[in-house]
Amino acid sequence: MSDTTVGTGRPFADAHVLTDLGDGRFRVALDDRWAIGSKAFGGLLMVLMAKAGLARLTADGAPALDPLAVSADFLRAPDLAPVELEAVPLKVGRTISSVAVRLLQDDRLMLHATVTAGVLPEGEPVWETDAGLGPEPDPDAADPSAQPGVSGLPTVCDLRYPATALPFLRGETGPPRMSGWVRPRGEEPDVLFALLSGDILPPTVFNLDGRVGWAPTVQLTALLRGRPAPGWLRVDSRSRTVSGTQFDEDVTVVDSRGRTVCQARQLALAPLQR
Amino acid sequence: MSDTTVGTGRPFADAHVLTDLGDGRFRVALDDRWAIGSKAFGGLLMVLMAKAGLARLTADGAPALDPLAVSADFLRAPDLAPVELEAVPLKVGRTISSVAVRLLQDDRLMLHATVTAGVLPEGEPVWETDAGLGPEPDPDAADPSAQPGVSGLPTVCDLRYPATALPFLRGETGPPRMSGWVRPRGEEPDVLFALLSGDILPPTVFNLDGRVGWAPTVQLTALLRGRPAPGWLRVDSRSRTVSGTQFDEDVTVVDSRGRTVCQARQLALAPLQR
Repeated sequence: MSDTTVGTGRPFADAHVLTDLGDGRFRVALDDRWAIGSKAFGGLLMVLMAKAGLARLTADGAPALDPLAVSADFLRAPDLAPVELEAVPLKVGRTISSVAVRLLQDDRLMLHATVTAGVLPEGEPVWETDAGLGPEPDPDAADPSAQPGVSGLPTVCDLRYPATALPFLRGETGPPRMSGWVRPRGEEPDVLFALLSGDILPPTVFNLDGRVGWAPTVQLTALLRGRPAPGWLRVDSRSRTVSGTQFDEDVTVVDSRGRTVCQARQLALAPLQR
Repeated sequence: MSDTTVGTGRPFADAHVLTDLGDGRFRVALDDRWAIGSKAFGGLLMVLMAKAGLARLTADGAPALDPLAVSADFLRAPDLAPVELEAVPLKVGRTISSVAVRLLQDDRLMLHATVTAGVLPEGEPVWETDAGLGPEPDPDAADPSAQPGVSGLPTVCDLRYPATALPFLRGETGPPRMSGWVRPRGEEPDVLFALLSGDILPPTVFNLDGRVGWAPTVQLTALLRGRPAPGWLRVDSRSRTVSGTQFDEDVTVVDSRGRTVCQARQLALAPLQR
């Protein structure tokens, strides 16, 4: 556990404090709590790249900016150790700006992202699709932090799963769909936490035949669509096609008012035992 | 109309012939048939960036590669004139390779893309979601090339719309959804045409209130999921959220066998009169 995260009670805010090295370069240590096993959690890496990109755009004189899209290639999986981020603007515009971000560990390129920035819409949407889950966890929802010896994400986020959402945990199979509720511990969700939530659920393919293992993300693009209201975020994840070793995950994150705040889709590889 | 496209009867194949300038640089002229008004059609720009990226990876010794994902920021809209493409590899791997591609016009960066490459799965999917439309156009489907004075895309692709799919054309309103069938003229669809098809339908927001105009793409990520079988491709497009000037379009392209070949999602800006 890194020094910066002790005692504030806001483990998400602490996890994305970047050290500015100047000239669009930043450093941060990856924490064993925001982790999947021995590797950094992809959702947090998305947040770090967004934050570095936005900081660089702001330094270049772009107006106050929200992330509108973050698109990343996961080239290699970072270890739980320091990483550096390098942000290079592609366009600073009046409405939309864009910046490329490289994430390196030991001078190796691990991820490459493009962050698209602008101003998130406020007010009532003209059109909004119904959310699936209700705004609060069901009374019988499962809490993964209640497991003995739990570590990682359930210790830093509040997570709840509908009683029937994870058949693989009961040794059963089902369609490649999952859902749940999530919020950061000690603070209300913001747009960066909405981004992280686009990768928070276990891989949908775990349900298909119960194979559980490393399911690396290849490409993940998240659109941010609004600033989340206080309260739980509801997350729905489903695969359209699982073919050979390749599967998609299409994740929708809806806030407590019923508004879509993140749409994330990833191409990933079905579990290989490591 | 460029010289290279006269007379072959395969306007799609002709449109993506790149001139190799060496060192990962390519040139191509944008054609007034693959156009939306006076600007280049985004779906073709995706194809050109994919092709340049794959050519560069092949030159760098990567094995035979298919596009698995193409993710692009549309920074500026290219005119119907020559463009240059510059491809720089990010990773050449055994399973997955990745390359960044810049598209320039008159030395200005117009688009930036990342192309993720690997080998498309063959054989039966483990899981496949049902396609919406049937494999062939309905008998009463509308053919936009039958309009008097038609130009642009309907002259180079076969396109059909279900009779009820485009209420905006009848001065009516409806949900932000569209669908249709498409195939290239003079050849069977390939994976690059599947990529192009992820952006082939009119903007879904035209249906919401009948506003028709320039609806620029901001970010578009397409996943390629399989090699299309011969025949028509069926395309379904829907927006989840339309909020302020920002809307998403989630497009699924299914081949004649019922297999998903492309999943494309874009963030776009609602029509502004130009």
